Amino acid sequence: MSKDAYAQGPRQGSDRIAQDGFSTVTDPADQTFTAVYRVRERADAIAARAKTIALEQSIEMSDEFVADAFVREQIVGRVEAIETAGPEAFDVRIALAVATTGAEPGQFMNMLFGNTSIHEDVRLIDVEIPPALAKAFGGPNFGLAGLRARSGATARAMTCSAIKPQGLPAPELARIAARFAAGGIDFVKDDHGLADQSYSPFADRLRACADAVAEANASTGGNTRYVPSLSGNLDRLRAQAEAALAAGVDTVLTVPMVIGLPAFNALAREYRGLAFMTHPALAGALRFAPPALLGKLFRLFGADATIFPNHGGRFGYTPETCRALADAARAPWHGLRACVPVPAGGMTTERVPEMLDFYGPDTILLIGGNLLAAGERLTEKTAEFVSLVKGGR
Amino acid sequence: MSKDAYAQGPRQGSDRIAQDGFSTVTDPADQTFTAVYRVRERADAIAARAKTIALEQSIEMSDEFVADAFVREQIVGRVEAIETAGPEAFDVRIALAVATTGAEPGQFMNMLFGNTSIHEDVRLIDVEIPPALAKAFGGPNFGLAGLRARSGATARAMTCSAIKPQGLPAPELARIAARFAAGGIDFVKDDHGLADQSYSPFADRLRACADAVAEANASTGGNTRYVPSLSGNLDRLRAQAEAALAAGVDTVLTVPMVIGLPAFNALAREYRGLAFMTHPALAGALRFAPPALLGKLFRLFGADATIFPNHGGRFGYTPETCRALADAARAPWHGLRACVPVPAGGMTTERVPEMLDFYGPDTILLIGGNLLAAGERLTEKTAEFVSLVKGGR
Repeated sequence: MSKDAYAQGPRQGSDRIAQDGFSTVTDPADQTFTAVYRVRERADAIAARAKTIALEQSIEMSDEFVADAFVREQIVGRVEAIETAGPEAFDVRIALAVATTGAEPGQFMNMLFGNTSIHEDVRLIDVEIPPALAKAFGGPNFGLAGLRARSGATARAMTCSAIKPQGLPAPELARIAARFAAGGIDFVKDDHGLADQSYSPFADRLRACADAVAEANASTGGNTRYVPSLSGNLDRLRAQAEAALAAGVDTVLTVPMVIGLPAFNALAREYRGLAFMTHPALAGALRFAPPALLGKLFRLFGADATIFPNHGGRFGYTPETCRALADAARAPWHGLRACVPVPAGGMTTERVPEMLDFYGPDTILLIGGNLLAAGERLTEKTAEFVSLVKGGR
Repeated sequence: MSKDAYAQGPRQGSDRIAQDGFSTVTDPADQTFTAVYRVRERADAIAARAKTIALEQSIEMSDEFVADAFVREQIVGRVEAIETAGPEAFDVRIALAVATTGAEPGQFMNMLFGNTSIHEDVRLIDVEIPPALAKAFGGPNFGLAGLRARSGATARAMTCSAIKPQGLPAPELARIAARFAAGGIDFVKDDHGLADQSYSPFADRLRACADAVAEANASTGGNTRYVPSLSGNLDRLRAQAEAALAAGVDTVLTVPMVIGLPAFNALAREYRGLAFMTHPALAGALRFAPPALLGKLFRLFGADATIFPNHGGRFGYTPETCRALADAARAPWHGLRACVPVPAGGMTTERVPEMLDFYGPDTILLIGGNLLAAGERLTEKTAEFVSLVKGGR
């Protein structure tokens, strides 16, 4: 299907995008973004199916009844290419108008996969955006270089662990944080299940853990960062971000699919002094290819580091998926800062050499339960992990 | 696995939930909610797998290393039942502590399906909550009775259509709205792709469509409701809700999985005078059974009416899924108002009798593209739809 198929009737309405955030866009390549779908379909039906997806994702009606030339030429989704991806599987590239997003994260996701997400035989496998959208959403505040500066790791991989389980009161969580810090870890994050619960309210936990880590740093000369998990709606997220800054915290954790992408992007843009580590909870339920969602999109909306399930752990990602995700997070992309991949999910210290081999040094290694299983030897076990990473492979 | 498996060590920490929002909970049944997962697993492995899921969804570590009695007794997820659901398929019921949710929608979703969503062989098929959570999240502001009162339909099914395509300027969208209203439809909603775009900014569209519908009502004596789509982060949603109220609007559309459930619930609770119709975009990508997500959870967080793809349309839901979804939306549930099912997605006026037969009168029938295909005869085609519904089957 060519673009010309929609070029009927008098051209009108070209000033309809004059007032938007993209009014300075002069490069025609900046006027569309591309969604790539993997579609299970018969070869003789894929052309019609691709056009149906292009309509569903743009005007949500048949273009047969659209008289308006601006809509036909600029708004209707356009099938750019259809490539064979296997038996009865095709990769369909569809160009959609940047103007339809209103430069808003939720509406951008809606345009990418809103209704088509309901079709079980379609997955969103990639997203390509013009510089204008990269600029609008902004990407990581600090990225790889900024996280390296925080941890003092100039070239090596960085280390991270998680405070758990939920249910413990703040002072006990703080004791765990202190032990991780004493072991020399770079980042100690809240488990993503630690929210604002009565048995360890956010404010109490923040104060207790930040103080405990600061004290451990003062004693060891280290610079472990406590990374609290922010949760709730935008009001609560802002209040927690303010509290974190007041407690001397400069790196936080969020769960974008739980708090919502509009809230995540708003927070990242408002708090330019915070680095954001993201957690993949709820994201696995989407038929989004993990490299596109956890690598590209989370980075685009503001993730400085993206946690994901490493292959061979508790979850089912393949090595290829992990490699593609890490590449998507770190590759040069419209000048956005590099987002640090954080492989996790049932990792052990035994796997450190192999993980360093696989991901290289521009990585944060996250080991939680395996360290916590050391019980009273948590500090020593953490030091062993840190030493393995510092020693490289 | 019995509850007693965790009952070890001295009981402590029982005052850790004294200060939370559930401190007045005295009925032990109010202390947990239940997630039901459909798991593909071998029969000889399902017991261990169920326990693994219970741990993943609660403390995210092995309980072997948890010394704290409060955590072991009250926080660790508990396998309540495992039922065969087919060859190598089991329904696993897991009880989770209400206190872990902090009465916050995002964290509640995180507890229900956060990490487990990443396992491709697990679907969340049902959710059972105690009255305390129903009260915390609140459900529909108006529900079935309130929407009936708005439309003046005391016993019949109600009618709805959608303004599209996106790309048209506000005055042209308003002309379409006016024609729907002239045809006597109950609700005219924005297409869910209409957000806040430069070619029809929300404020312009709201004013133009609300005025056009009010004018048509004045001329026909009808009471069609214009239902604008609210989008963006919580700040923008609030601004749009205020503008809608100022324009005399009392019913709005939101896309909960696009704006984020924390934002949706916050909006529904703040704007008690607005009725909320929800759209399923992006929700289809989740491995949530549609009745649980679009029926129960959207209702719980505040949907007065829930749009979903009817069987036999553009999407793949079965009649059984549609029936279960409609039942979940309308059934008595902890005193929450009934949420009105809105079957949609490629419906035609020819299907009205069959749909009324299937769903009964406590329903809103939504037909979009099929009416718009009438072009200049839109008012007449709308009147025909309305007449078919008013006539019943």
